Amino acid sequence: MIKKCIQIVPGFSWFGKNIGIKDQTLDFGGILSDVPCQAAGVFTKNTIPGAPVIVGKEHLRDGMLQAVIVNSKNANVATQQRGIEDSRDICAMVAAACGITTELVLPSSTGVIGRRMPMNVVIEGCKGLREDYGKSVQHIENFAESIMTTDTRKKIVSAEVGNAKILGIAKGAGMIEPNMATMLCYFVTDAALSSQELKSMLLRVVSCSFNRISVDTDTSTSDTVVIMSNGLAGAVDPVTFEEKLQQMSIYLAKEITRDGEGATKLIELTVSGAKTEEQALLTAKSVINSPLVKTAIYGADPNWGRFAMAIGKVFQYKVDITDLKIFFGSGDKRLCIDTVALDCNEVPLDGISKLLKKNEVHIEIVLGGGPYSERVWGCDLTEGYIHENAKYTT
Amino acid sequence: MIKKCIQIVPGFSWFGKNIGIKDQTLDFGGILSDVPCQAAGVFTKNTIPGAPVIVGKEHLRDGMLQAVIVNSKNANVATQQRGIEDSRDICAMVAAACGITTELVLPSSTGVIGRRMPMNVVIEGCKGLREDYGKSVQHIENFAESIMTTDTRKKIVSAEVGNAKILGIAKGAGMIEPNMATMLCYFVTDAALSSQELKSMLLRVVSCSFNRISVDTDTSTSDTVVIMSNGLAGAVDPVTFEEKLQQMSIYLAKEITRDGEGATKLIELTVSGAKTEEQALLTAKSVINSPLVKTAIYGADPNWGRFAMAIGKVFQYKVDITDLKIFFGSGDKRLCIDTVALDCNEVPLDGISKLLKKNEVHIEIVLGGGPYSERVWGCDLTEGYIHENAKYTT
Repeated sequence: MIKKCIQIVPGFSWFGKNIGIKDQTLDFGGILSDVPCQAAGVFTKNTIPGAPVIVGKEHLRDGMLQAVIVNSKNANVATQQRGIEDSRDICAMVAAACGITTELVLPSSTGVIGRRMPMNVVIEGCKGLREDYGKSVQHIENFAESIMTTDTRKKIVSAEVGNAKILGIAKGAGMIEPNMATMLCYFVTDAALSSQELKSMLLRVVSCSFNRISVDTDTSTSDTVVIMSNGLAGAVDPVTFEEKLQQMSIYLAKEITRDGEGATKLIELTVSGAKTEEQALLTAKSVINSPLVKTAIYGADPNWGRFAMAIGKVFQYKVDITDLKIFFGSGDKRLCIDTVALDCNEVPLDGISKLLKKNEVHIEIVLGGGPYSERVWGCDLTEGYIHENAKYTT
Repeated sequence: MIKKCIQIVPGFSWFGKNIGIKDQTLDFGGILSDVPCQAAGVFTKNTIPGAPVIVGKEHLRDGMLQAVIVNSKNANVATQQRGIEDSRDICAMVAAACGITTELVLPSSTGVIGRRMPMNVVIEGCKGLREDYGKSVQHIENFAESIMTTDTRKKIVSAEVGNAKILGIAKGAGMIEPNMATMLCYFVTDAALSSQELKSMLLRVVSCSFNRISVDTDTSTSDTVVIMSNGLAGAVDPVTFEEKLQQMSIYLAKEITRDGEGATKLIELTVSGAKTEEQALLTAKSVINSPLVKTAIYGADPNWGRFAMAIGKVFQYKVDITDLKIFFGSGDKRLCIDTVALDCNEVPLDGISKLLKKNEVHIEIVLGGGPYSERVWGCDLTEGYIHENAKYTT
C-alpha cells in the first residue's frame, strides 16, 4: 500500500527556504543525492516551454541527475535567451555549492509567466547553500512547501518495494491540463533501476495518472515530472515498483485535482462502452472540462442534460442516445439515467442531487457499442477559481 | 449601414406570449409569412441534437418555410422518439391554426435539456393562435423577448438592400461555442432570393460571425440559424445583400458574446501572421477560451504570460517566441508586448491594465512567419457565470 506521509529515502537531502522572490513564504527548495542517480523525466508539451524545461531536458539527456533546484513565485517563461542563461546560472551556483557538475542539476520554476528571475535575490539565496540541506522529515516538508503556489496544502506520498523506498512530492493547482506530462512532481527512490527502465515506466504511469486530470483546461508551460534513483537499496522487482509508482502518481494526481483552484469537489469520471480509446478519452475530457457540467456539480444541480450536451460535442463520434446511460454514485448506491427505460420526467433528480453534494463525486457514462473505457479526474468550477485568478499578478 | 433597431419587413407577422411552460415570462413565440418563403438554415453539429433540430432539418429539406415556432424554458433534447413526436405535434397545431401545411413550419426549443415538453400547456397555448399574430413593432419585440433564456436583453438588427429589408433576431447566452451553426437566430427578408442562394450565403456568413464566438466552450444541442425570404420586394444585388447579412450576423454574434452569462466585457481577438488558416483559428480559440486569460481580463490583470501559455498549448504548431508580439488596445493607442525588443520587465503593465478595464477589449496576437489571420470574439469569466449556472434547474 502507499502511505500519505513522508518516508525518508536514504541518500537524499532536502531543503526549502525563503529567499524573498516575492514575499515571505518559502520560495526556494532543493533535492540533493549523495551519489549520482539514474534519472528520467517527462515535460510539458506546451510549445512555449519555460527556460528551466529547456535546460532540464538538456541536463537529463544522459539519464543522470544528482540534484533538483526549484523556485516558486516566478516561472521563468517567455523570458527569451536571457531566461535560459538565468536558469543555467542557477544550476551552476547550486552545483558549485554542492561540489557536483552543473549538468547533474535539474532546474524547475513555477509562478508568474513573463518576468525575469530576480537574479540578485537568487545569488544571495545560493550563498552557503550546502548548509541548508538535511535529511530530516522537517527538511522534506520545507521542500514540499517551497514549491507551492496557489496550492492550499502539501502533496506527499510514499511507498516501499522490497527493501527500497519511494517518495513523491507534487504541486498543482491551476493551469492544469497536463499533456504527456504535468505540473511539478518529484520522485526519489533508493531502488536500483536504470534511466531507461525509469523512463519507460514513467511514460506509462504518467499516461494513466497526471495525463488524466484537468482543473481548467490550461496546459502549463512548466510541467515537469522527474524520478531519481540512487540505487543504494539494490535491485527490486520492476513490476511491483511500477505498480507502486502508478498508485502514488494516481494519488498525487487526484490530490492536485482535489486542491484545484477554488475547487470544493473531486470528480472521478469513467467513460465506458466506447468504440475506440480515442472516443473514450475525448468524451471523458469533453465532460470533465465542460464549464456547464462543472458549475452544475458545484451547485449539486442534477442537470444531467448538460452531460448529454458535452457527450454530443465530440463531433467525430456519433452517439446513439438510445444506448446512452449515465450512472451517478458508486457501489450499490448508483443511480442511473436511462432515457429509454425511464420517461425522462421520471429521472431520480433528488437522489442525484444528494450524490452531487458529496466532496467526491463518482460518475460513469456508458456509451454502448464498444469495449473501450477511460477514467479521468476533474473538479468543480466555483467563485473561488475566479477570485484566485482575476487579480493574480496585481 | 445596419441599424440596431426593428425595421418592419412587409409580409411577416409575429407574436410572443406567455403560456406558462415554467413561469410568467414570455416563453412562446412565432413568425408567420403571408406567402411561402424560400428558406435556408444551419444547425448545431452536436451529435445529440434537440428534437426540433431533427424535425426542422426535415422540414427545410425542400428549401421552403412559411412559419417558425419557438419556445423557451425547455429545449426538448434527449427526450427520445417521444420528444420528436412532440415537436411534430407542435408544428401541426401551428400549421392548423395558420392554415398552412405542417412541413412549412420550423420548430425551435431552448432551455433545460432532458425534460419532456409540457404538451398540455402547449396545446392550450395554441388555441386561437392565429389571433396572436400581428405586424407591429410591439409584436416583433414580444417575439424577441419570448425566445430569451438567460439573455439580459433582446438582440435585434435590421438593414436595407435596395427596396428590400432584412430583420434579424437572436438569443444567447450560455452553452455557446457554435460549430457550423449557433444558438437561435432568425432572419426574415422581402428580397427575392432562392433557397440555394440563401443557403450558400448563410454558410459563408455564419462561418465568420456565429462560428467565431465563444462564451464557455460548450456547444448547444439546439443551435439554429434560419433565413426566410418572401420575395415581396423583388430582386436585389446578392453581393450587397450578403454584405449586409454578414454585418448583421457579426453584430448579433458580438451582442450574444457581450451578453454572455456573467460577462462584463466583450473581447475581440485577432491572430495574424499564422502559417495556416487552421493555426490562426486554433490559436485564437485557445486564447479566447482559456479560463486563465478570461479571468485575468475580468480583473484587468495585465498577466500577459497567460497569453503565451494559451498560444503554446496549440501543440500542432511550434511557435517561435522571438517572433511573437501581442498588441493591446486599438488604433493609435495600441501597446505592444515584444519580449525580444523589450526586456520583459519593461513591459507597460500599467498601460495594459488600463486598456483591460474597458468594456470592449481589443487584442491582436502576431505569430510571425505566415500570412493567415482570424478574428474571434469572447467574453470574460466572472462570478456571475458561476451564479447563473450552479443552480440552473433547482
